[in-house]
Amino acid sequence: MPGSDVGADFWMNEYITPWDIYAHGVTKVLAYQKTAYQEMYVVETGTYGKALVLDGKWQSCTGDEFLYHEPLVHPAMIFHGSPRKVLILGGGEGATAREVLRWQTVEKVVMIDIDGEVVEACKQHLSEMHQNAFDDPRLNVVIADALNFLDTTDEKWDVIISDLSDPIESGPSFQLFTKEYFEKARRVLAPQGFFVVQAGPVSPGELVLHARLAKTLTTVFPNVQSYSSPTCTYGRAWGFILTSEQEINTRPNPENIDQLLQEKTSGGLRMLDGVALLGMLNLPLHLRQAIAQETQVYTLAEPPKFFGQGSVK
Amino acid sequence: MPGSDVGADFWMNEYITPWDIYAHGVTKVLAYQKTAYQEMYVVETGTYGKALVLDGKWQSCTGDEFLYHEPLVHPAMIFHGSPRKVLILGGGEGATAREVLRWQTVEKVVMIDIDGEVVEACKQHLSEMHQNAFDDPRLNVVIADALNFLDTTDEKWDVIISDLSDPIESGPSFQLFTKEYFEKARRVLAPQGFFVVQAGPVSPGELVLHARLAKTLTTVFPNVQSYSSPTCTYGRAWGFILTSEQEINTRPNPENIDQLLQEKTSGGLRMLDGVALLGMLNLPLHLRQAIAQETQVYTLAEPPKFFGQGSVK
Amino acid sequence: MPGSDVGADFWMNEYITPWDIYAHGVTKVLAYQKTAYQEMYVVETGTYGKALVLDGKWQSCTGDEFLYHEPLVHPAMIFHGSPRKVLILGGGEGATAREVLRWQTVEKVVMIDIDGEVVEACKQHLSEMHQNAFDDPRLNVVIADALNFLDTTDEKWDVIISDLSDPIESGPSFQLFTKEYFEKARRVLAPQGFFVVQAGPVSPGELVLHARLAKTLTTVFPNVQSYSSPTCTYGRAWGFILTSEQEINTRPNPENIDQLLQEKTSGGLRMLDGVALLGMLNLPLHLRQAIAQETQVYTLAEPPKFFGQGSVK
Amino acid sequence: MPGSDVGADFWMNEYITPWDIYAHGVTKVLAYQKTAYQEMYVVETGTYGKALVLDGKWQSCTGDEFLYHEPLVHPAMIFHGSPRKVLILGGGEGATAREVLRWQTVEKVVMIDIDGEVVEACKQHLSEMHQNAFDDPRLNVVIADALNFLDTTDEKWDVIISDLSDPIESGPSFQLFTKEYFEKARRVLAPQGFFVVQAGPVSPGELVLHARLAKTLTTVFPNVQSYSSPTCTYGRAWGFILTSEQEINTRPNPENIDQLLQEKTSGGLRMLDGVALLGMLNLPLHLRQAIAQETQVYTLAEPPKFFGQGSVK
Repeated sequence: MPGSDVGADFWMNEYITPWDIYAHGVTKVLAYQKTAYQEMYVVETGTYGKALVLDGKWQSCTGDEFLYHEPLVHPAMIFHGSPRKVLILGGGEGATAREVLRWQTVEKVVMIDIDGEVVEACKQHLSEMHQNAFDDPRLNVVIADALNFLDTTDEKWDVIISDLSDPIESGPSFQLFTKEYFEKARRVLAPQGFFVVQAGPVSPGELVLHARLAKTLTTVFPNVQSYSSPTCTYGRAWGFILTSEQEINTRPNPENIDQLLQEKTSGGLRMLDGVALLGMLNLPLHLRQAIAQETQVYTLAEPPKFFGQGSVK
Repeated sequence: MPGSDVGADFWMNEYITPWDIYAHGVTKVLAYQKTAYQEMYVVETGTYGKALVLDGKWQSCTGDEFLYHEPLVHPAMIFHGSPRKVLILGGGEGATAREVLRWQTVEKVVMIDIDGEVVEACKQHLSEMHQNAFDDPRLNVVIADALNFLDTTDEKWDVIISDLSDPIESGPSFQLFTKEYFEKARRVLAPQGFFVVQAGPVSPGELVLHARLAKTLTTVFPNVQSYSSPTCTYGRAWGFILTSEQEINTRPNPENIDQLLQEKTSGGLRMLDGVALLGMLNLPLHLRQAIAQETQVYTLAEPPKFFGQGSVK
Repeated sequence: MPGSDVGADFWMNEYITPWDIYAHGVTKVLAYQKTAYQEMYVVETGTYGKALVLDGKWQSCTGDEFLYHEPLVHPAMIFHGSPRKVLILGGGEGATAREVLRWQTVEKVVMIDIDGEVVEACKQHLSEMHQNAFDDPRLNVVIADALNFLDTTDEKWDVIISDLSDPIESGPSFQLFTKEYFEKARRVLAPQGFFVVQAGPVSPGELVLHARLAKTLTTVFPNVQSYSSPTCTYGRAWGFILTSEQEINTRPNPENIDQLLQEKTSGGLRMLDGVALLGMLNLPLHLRQAIAQETQVYTLAEPPKFFGQGSVK
Repeated sequence: MPGSDVGADFWMNEYITPWDIYAHGVTKVLAYQKTAYQEMYVVETGTYGKALVLDGKWQSCTGDEFLYHEPLVHPAMIFHGSPRKVLILGGGEGATAREVLRWQTVEKVVMIDIDGEVVEACKQHLSEMHQNAFDDPRLNVVIADALNFLDTTDEKWDVIISDLSDPIESGPSFQLFTKEYFEKARRVLAPQGFFVVQAGPVSPGELVLHARLAKTLTTVFPNVQSYSSPTCTYGRAWGFILTSEQEINTRPNPENIDQLLQEKTSGGLRMLDGVALLGMLNLPLHLRQAIAQETQVYTLAEPPKFFGQGSVK
């Protein structure tokens, strides 16, 4: 059967746009659950290993997640230089925590995820992702709404990482891509701290979300810098936005960064080093222009509505 | 019908790997032809404009081709600084010529494409791509086999651009991704010249082709530098390899480049400027490692066999 | 490439239901046109020959159209016994006319189709379908709205065949599946005449359309008989409804029918003979029950809305 | 997301031919297992309920399985008239046994299935199919190879039902579609007995398997009769072949059959009654011709190789 030779019999179809579908052949369904917040699959795919899928949106897979999680975590950590306390908002797979915990300077990590059932499934089925990060005594996982959590703490954090699912309508995350949420994050960020947001695709047909997130963040933080990584199972490169009270040098010296990583981390990075960081921070012209020209700001009254639709009513 | 609201009724499915399909909804078929060398479609898609498809492989589309053609052309031109004579091997859409002709220093461009029927179809249906480049008196289009052409000329070229379709089995191009072909190109490259090759995807699951092309080129040129661009309708980032007798500075000063482009080109670049070039040249660690560790060289006896299969017998 | 070995690169996807897609690999696009009424493709497929596609709905293809057109035409002709004048409403491909013209008793055929551009494309690209029926002097093709045509004639017809595209919303046909339209047809049907309607799929998940059409026809004609044929490229069996002032014998003697066909037609039938007709008229129990229990009638005020959506505004 | 409105995110693609795919949207994966013999999924689909999928081939689903299981079982039972002992070869879902057990004359049913893991999964997840047939004391399930079983028994059976998965290469069943196997079945068939075989699709593009099975059976039994049912989730009608030492009347009196069913069964049939049986036995001409003209016979040396490929090595 074709399935054996060149394709699969089960396919997970993700609509990148209404006219572009990225379909991954599924060789095995490891877990399926309709949680209180979303519909979850953990599947094994033909080429890129095991994947987590929430509300029909590909979250990450073992075969290329390092292209997402390393860029999400390390630039903020590097620019801080010696992060001790790190707050992760979202991050169910445990891979964001895994990268944070590579830093020997880190003393305390709190990870807030709204969906305990997803976290449990990832613990059980995606050990390649978390690599036992959940067992590290420095990590504390709290099942809670990130928006509420930020109101209940006065603790200050060196690095805050917003690792949320895309802001699709009826999904659990769209309120967390707004000015109000970013202001709550700023309140608990240490003065020397860095706040980083996973910030959507940077392909020409879908730049609006990223550009508006960047614009929204400029109303909250004095320094806002976009960067991107060549993720592949998302079907296009992914954007991140780093913000701080501190200046962000887009032309850092690669050799200095390599030295910092060697001194302060336990190693193991696959894609990110000094050269890679220099590359990621220097974006193509059209992307910088789209960000610079954007005027609209996301608020709770006018939140983003990313293409797609979740299962929350 | 679903077609009207969220999708299309006709889809062009490209197998990225045997288990990953990128499907583009086709709203109109502008041209179809079984040429002497390959099967050609020119189609209109829902999100990314008009596309050229050869032997079932997406070549380029109007909506994001600038992410391919600008990186293909300008780094070589910039590093040369004042290119006068440029040779394009392949490049049927005319978009590579379009970018070359932006340089006011350019006096002569020869474009060698094997498939005159494809060139004609592009002239007629893809004016957004060529933007009348074919009418520029500096351009001479020759319908011929690139491999043969290189043997019949002793002219020297400042920049040679290898803009060929992927080296799929039975396709018309696989022989042009070999040491022997690269040596023929070197023979007609001016001493100060630069030779650049479109060099396949740089996604983790498909790095072998790019890495072996880089290794193969190191057996022919003293300086070989990979770089990549965040193409999106290919479903992943694309790689290029720049080679020369001259050194290639991977940390050029962006402001100097912007000044050069302003002085020597007629402008109009959308994605490439000094900052973008700095970004593209500084690759992720895993990609540099894969290139450095590769040992195999492509030859006519052992050419590449990229995933896919053409129609040439 | 997969396309060469086991699949195609272009696919025509038809949503049978919102959760079931029948996809046909397209090897060539012979014609594409956005007509005044609908969107039309004529394509070549891998297994079943050339196909006509209107508004994303598969109409018929050369590889199995005999399973649709023979059952559509011959039962009405056979039950009449000696049809001289036949009216075809719709039937753009010319295959319905082809079957009608096999009857040597036939003196006059009028075919009313709303879309002259579709008829022209079929003439040019689908000769396997019409087999030069359009050249038969007995056939007169009128490009007009069937609904209007019926009001403008007082001529009486021995057999009237309603060969219309499915009644999808915004398509050109949904008004022609109503009590009012059927009454217009009855007015011009000869007393000994038979009226037959292509009447949608008879699969368990989609029985409503067929059952309501049958119910609607019982409000207009005293005798109404459903039957079905094992069409395959539609992805399920197809239903037809035969109606008349005359009684319809569902257990005809096959040998008598074979003799009638031999005497009165020029032969060439592939699927329909006496035995086949006996089989088609004797439907499964669940289908007869669904028809018997249906209570709703389609009217111009409440026309059918078959799954799918057309392009007419 | 499209998944919520008109389609699914997970799809089970079945290649009907290399160029025709029937894709069913999967809303839930109930069970997945790589058994000793095949790869098994039990899934929930959007339109047609729960389905069993083996080696990528759709076996049956709750929404239309009555169109397969009733025609498979009852014609043989009806023609026998008073079956007491029934042997089922295959039939893992338990739906074939369910239909057999409707007959009050039945005293003993033995069901031989090679794959105990599939039977267990069906028991657990497909109660709509077996409807507790497994609890009926008249039924004895034996996990064994049907080919071997037939050699080890001298018991005679009134009805033998071959309900095997399609004879794909490397699947567990292809040897059971051969002259040798049919001879083994004949040895244990009572003189008044009937043997029925599920016998592949009867669509024009795939008639060879059915026609050759019919031809093969004519070398073993004096009376061989094909019939078909309008199954829909298989994407085309399905064929069966009934064989016996006894004559098979293809024009039975429907009323007599209805009376027999009323007297001897507990009722509950949805599609099959006297009228339906009359319809099923009277096949289209092209199908009868293909069967009549076939000359090739399947043997263990030259078994069928149905399109598709299993996982058995």
